[in-house]
Amino acid sequence: MSEKLPIALDAMGGDYAPAAMVDGAIQAAERGIAVTLVGREDQITKELVAKAGKNWHVLPLNVVHAADVIGMDDAATQVRSNKQLSINVAVNLVRQKKASAVVAQGHTGATLVSALFGLGRLAGVERPAIVANFPNAKGRVTLVDVGANADNRPEFLQGFALMGAAYTSTMQGIPDPSVGLLSIGEEEGKGNALVNETFDLLKNTPGIRFFGNVEGRDIFKGTVDVVVTDGFTGNVVLKTAEAEAKVLVGWIKEALTGGSWLVKLGALLVRPALRSVGAKLDPAEFGAQPLLGVKGLVFIGHGSSDAKAVYSALANAQKAVDANLLEKVAVKLEGLTKKLGADA
Amino acid sequence: MSEKLPIALDAMGGDYAPAAMVDGAIQAAERGIAVTLVGREDQITKELVAKAGKNWHVLPLNVVHAADVIGMDDAATQVRSNKQLSINVAVNLVRQKKASAVVAQGHTGATLVSALFGLGRLAGVERPAIVANFPNAKGRVTLVDVGANADNRPEFLQGFALMGAAYTSTMQGIPDPSVGLLSIGEEEGKGNALVNETFDLLKNTPGIRFFGNVEGRDIFKGTVDVVVTDGFTGNVVLKTAEAEAKVLVGWIKEALTGGSWLVKLGALLVRPALRSVGAKLDPAEFGAQPLLGVKGLVFIGHGSSDAKAVYSALANAQKAVDANLLEKVAVKLEGLTKKLGADA
Repeated sequence: MSEKLPIALDAMGGDYAPAAMVDGAIQAAERGIAVTLVGREDQITKELVAKAGKNWHVLPLNVVHAADVIGMDDAATQVRSNKQLSINVAVNLVRQKKASAVVAQGHTGATLVSALFGLGRLAGVERPAIVANFPNAKGRVTLVDVGANADNRPEFLQGFALMGAAYTSTMQGIPDPSVGLLSIGEEEGKGNALVNETFDLLKNTPGIRFFGNVEGRDIFKGTVDVVVTDGFTGNVVLKTAEAEAKVLVGWIKEALTGGSWLVKLGALLVRPALRSVGAKLDPAEFGAQPLLGVKGLVFIGHGSSDAKAVYSALANAQKAVDANLLEKVAVKLEGLTKKLGADA
Repeated sequence: MSEKLPIALDAMGGDYAPAAMVDGAIQAAERGIAVTLVGREDQITKELVAKAGKNWHVLPLNVVHAADVIGMDDAATQVRSNKQLSINVAVNLVRQKKASAVVAQGHTGATLVSALFGLGRLAGVERPAIVANFPNAKGRVTLVDVGANADNRPEFLQGFALMGAAYTSTMQGIPDPSVGLLSIGEEEGKGNALVNETFDLLKNTPGIRFFGNVEGRDIFKGTVDVVVTDGFTGNVVLKTAEAEAKVLVGWIKEALTGGSWLVKLGALLVRPALRSVGAKLDPAEFGAQPLLGVKGLVFIGHGSSDAKAVYSALANAQKAVDANLLEKVAVKLEGLTKKLGADA
């Protein structure tokens, strides 16, 4: 493992930073994943000593100092002016080939800006996109973009489709994933102006197996492997779906604990079975979502990430490094750059 | 009850027409709701006799003949040319004050076009909208528009906000409902161009209590009473949420029936408690969603409606008639017409 580059973890971003980040990094390091913790050295070292003892450096962990951190309410544009922000230092480690990937649970907009300006876009990419992947009736589904782009053009979505397909084949092991375009009707011509223009583009995009339009229900039915949408709709869908799962699980818990003693006995007996369903839905199992389209691997986690979520994010990032996700995405986009070249 | 106008039910639209429609109408009639079944008289009468006997006409039911029906794959524009379509005949009964409302489970686009051209728009309405209302962590939430408008302008959403507020106060009994604008960030200025322009409009719209932006998660958290969005995003959210609930319930069933005999015993004991959660989520409990903004009450149900869903839709429509929903919506829009008048 020693020849592997570490993953740069922004240890200062997120609701439970730096404690949860240090904890998650230790869990990852114990499983052989090398991590560079980026942030205030004194705070991080103190946490490391408290949690892994004075000999913490026998683990594949190191600390790179960054004096500042961007607050959740700060403007993302601060990233442009302050080189000492932990997210900028982390991104810089990837640019300098001192880290294989960035994992960040802080200010999403700041991470986007830092990655975009620190690493630059891959050839053929109009806009980077955030990719989510979650369980559905038939296995898992990839949804892209889930929030990097509020206003969109058809060419953006064309890139999302290619990046989503590359992600799904590389990370989910589906060789030639089907790609659906999220709309409000299945037939060609149903949907808004953006969808209709994008439909025409995707029909003629080499490198994807385009299924056609899909509807909201198809995300959970598992009609296609990849669902492409603008970052506004995708973000709303992702956040709605997460909250719905939480509310439904809460109702079930309430129903099982609020009833008669017979119901309570039954609840005791079914608890392990229900726990497996709960685990399926736990975002902490997932950890973080990749930002694709920049020249480096960047994973964005929930602000509310606990140590388990941080560990999952690091493990997921290491899996992407080992699977060569960045190169696979770049290759997938080559069709577009060639087409662009031919057009010119 | 006899002085009340009947509700016009399109007996030919929907996957299980006319059987489910006749069945649902009988259930409603037995509870005192008068229904006019619109469609092929011979088919409907045959079903009536089969299900309620030769004396079916002692119930507050009657049949109005319509020779044709629009197929689910037909173009909605057919509605303009064929007066004998059951949906056109049903809408016409409302226009002629021979029915108090329309309930239709067939081709949604056709119902929209028929209502828009058959009844016309209420003063102040740029575009009619479909309103959905469903359970969440704090009670219920109204989401508007859920699919009448694929491409939107800020003025459309302003109307949706007013109509959604009128619906929520009238039908859900919330006197001064809070209204949120669906976006991908809570702060003003977060979101796409449509949201940002709409935000400015809603801030200055009399007659609504504007909360500001809300995110996807707020729909299920219950942050506001009414969530306003464009018909594209709203439709995607509604269909995603419905499918997710189905998939989660399926997983739970699977977990409870696939385990050891102890789990199976537990499942038996908790079944009634879980059934109450399932009932909360059953779209058939809800029945149909109103199309607001036209000069008449029109309720649009799922194509897959069974008899229970048809009954619920009729009961919901009757509740809207009794509560004077149409007038309440018209009054709520008066602020807009006055403003428009002042602008002119």
